[in-house]
This record gives sequence, C-alpha cells and structure tokens, in this order.
Amino acid sequence: MSSKRVIRTEHAPTPVASFSQGVAKGGLLQVAGQVGFDPATGAPVGPGLTEQVEQTLRNVGAVLSEGGASWGDLVMMRVYLTDTAHFAELNEAYNAWFAKELPDGDVPARTTVYVGLPAGLLVEIDALAVTD
Amino acid sequence: MSSKRVIRTEHAPTPVASFSQGVAKGGLLQVAGQVGFDPATGAPVGPGLTEQVEQTLRNVGAVLSEGGASWGDLVMMRVYLTDTAHFAELNEAYNAWFAKELPDGDVPARTTVYVGLPAGLLVEIDALAVTD
Amino acid sequence: MSSKRVIRTEHAPTPVASFSQGVAKGGLLQVAGQVGFDPATGAPVGPGLTEQVEQTLRNVGAVLSEGGASWGDLVMMRVYLTDTAHFAELNEAYNAWFAKELPDGDVPARTTVYVGLPAGLLVEIDALAVTD
Repeated sequence: MSSKRVIRTEHAPTPVASFSQGVAKGGLLQVAGQVGFDPATGAPVGPGLTEQVEQTLRNVGAVLSEGGASWGDLVMMRVYLTDTAHFAELNEAYNAWFAKELPDGDVPARTTVYVGLPAGLLVEIDALAVTD
Repeated sequence: MSSKRVIRTEHAPTPVASFSQGVAKGGLLQVAGQVGFDPATGAPVGPGLTEQVEQTLRNVGAVLSEGGASWGDLVMMRVYLTDTAHFAELNEAYNAWFAKELPDGDVPARTTVYVGLPAGLLVEIDALAVTD
Repeated sequence: MSSKRVIRTEHAPTPVASFSQGVAKGGLLQVAGQVGFDPATGAPVGPGLTEQVEQTLRNVGAVLSEGGASWGDLVMMRVYLTDTAHFAELNEAYNAWFAKELPDGDVPARTTVYVGLPAGLLVEIDALAVTD
C-alpha cells in the first residue's frame, strides 16, 4: 500500500471545503482545481483574465513545489474558462508561462472547456503530475 | 504490462453505454462519473441536491469497494454541478460525508465546475484512487 | 525519477497552443483533449456529431498508438458534449467504436458532461491510459 501525503501550503489558497490543495500517492501528485485567488488575501486578483491565469498558475506551482514536484513532472493540465472569446488571451498567458518554465517545449497535455464558475472567476486549472 | 480489472457491481448504477463503472490498472482505480441514480431502481433519488450528492457518493463508494479501495485511497474528486447557487449545499453534504469517512482530514483534492447535465440530475462526481 | 516522453504525431491535430498531444510518464499515458479536426487539413470534419465523434476517436487512437498504448490500456475517457440532446447519437458512435476495438467489453470508465466548445465543435474527448 503506497503512503498518501496531503499537500498543505500557505502559498496557495486555503480550500473552502473538505478537500486538499493536492494529494501525492504512489508516484502521482494531483493538484486540486486552482483559481485566481491571491493566497495572501483570499480575494481574486484581476479583474482581467491574464492576471487570473498567472495567479492560478502560481497557485498550481505552489502546490507542485510543496509536493516536491516541478513543472516538468506535469502530464496534464485541465483548463476551465467561462467564455470561448477568452481562448486567445488564455493561450498568450499560458504559452508565455510555459516558455519560461519549460523552455525545452516538453509541455503537459491539456484539455480546455467552457463552463460556469462562481461570480468573478474567469479561469480554473487543475493539474496531474507524475513524480516517480 | 499491468493487468486491467474492470469493476462491475450491482451496488452502483448499470452503465447506460459502453463504459465501465470503474477500471483498475497499474495501481490506479478510476471511478466513472456517478450520478444520483439508485442502483436498485435505476431512477434518480431526489429531488433535492443533498439526496443526490449522498446517493452519488454511495455509488462512488460501491465502485471503490468492489475495486478493493477505500476512501483514504482517493487522490481526486471531480464534482460537476449545474448551478453555482448549489455550491454551499454541496459542501455541506460533501463535508459531512468526508468528516465521517476520513475523520483524519486527509481528504482528496477536488475540482468543482458548473456544466449541463441530463434533465433531473443536479450533480455528477468521478474519482481517482491510487491503491498501490 | 521516471522519464517523461512527449508524444508527437502527424496523425493527430497539431496543438494550437503550448501543450502536447500526449505525455507518457511513470506508466501513465495522458492524451490531451481531442476534437474532430482532420489532422491532414486542420479543419473540423462534419458537420454531424457522428463524424466528429469518429474523427475524435481516431485522433485519440493516433496518440495512443504513437505512445505505444492500445485501446485496452485505457482506464478513463472524458467526453464533453455541447447539448444533452446529443447523448444518444454519441453513444451509438461510441458503442460501435468500442465494440470493434474492445470486443471483450472491458471498456474504460467514462464521464460525460455538457460544456461550451469553440464554434463548430460538438465533442471533445481526452483519455488516460496505464501502460505498465
């Protein structure tokens, strides 16, 4: 039986219900859906999409880091937007992020779909990493 | 090559198309999206969200159990609601469930998004467990 | 540390942003969200749902194949539709596909939800396989 490690870090937003920021077990690290909350204030950054995407990715990175994983360990990113008109702006911020974090281009897979999110939130991202 | 085991249990609803209730392979157990169908009748419980959430979690638990996994093996829950106004009621039922099943607080990660579901269904949940 | 392999194949559509068609790491193969684009033309097939589902599944299969995996290695399919009225037609095409690829009936788990997709697209599917 593999041991489970629940990730807890003050550098990502505190969960608002009974879920963990991330869970590592058996070589997987699953990052919970992150949004553009600033962990220091608990409030959303913004109001723009680019700022929310960048904060969301910072939050994903904080959970990865606390779990001992890096951007290169990611196999999947699930991106939830609220409006198909936001796709180009998402990609601009997302591509710039990965150009910096993974300049070799060995980026994770991704699915992007358009859903409803709580008022004020324009993006949510969760992530799956394989660490060993 | 790891061997695959398809989970089949009468304690969760019968799939309505060519998919399995769950699949175990290589130490992962993936539970298919469950909804608030009572496996005994095939009809949705309800009409309230709380009843549907509880039935959905019972169905997730039946697949976990048949696959030899427990709530503590879960790394991720994906929760699909149809209305952002349901978030508080979801959390009340969800938190109570995990307070009972995982009193140590080492709960799985979670993503919650708002989508369309077939008429009468208010919630769908799928789950990923790591068993070894 | 497990080594990561990014899947690249001309038999599935070229990603439109910084993500990979698939990533293999530590015995997992994650296939990015595929849609009904013909990789030869970059344009959507269609206009019907059935044609899009079949092209989407061909694209999933191309990534699996390039990653050394087969339909039998799949543990999960995530299906995103845009309209609950499409469920029956999806299942007809999906069931026929798996009747051919996995006649033993040991099919992957599945979650189906209804979301927004870019104009012209009726279905998106991503997939998780375990190869060892």
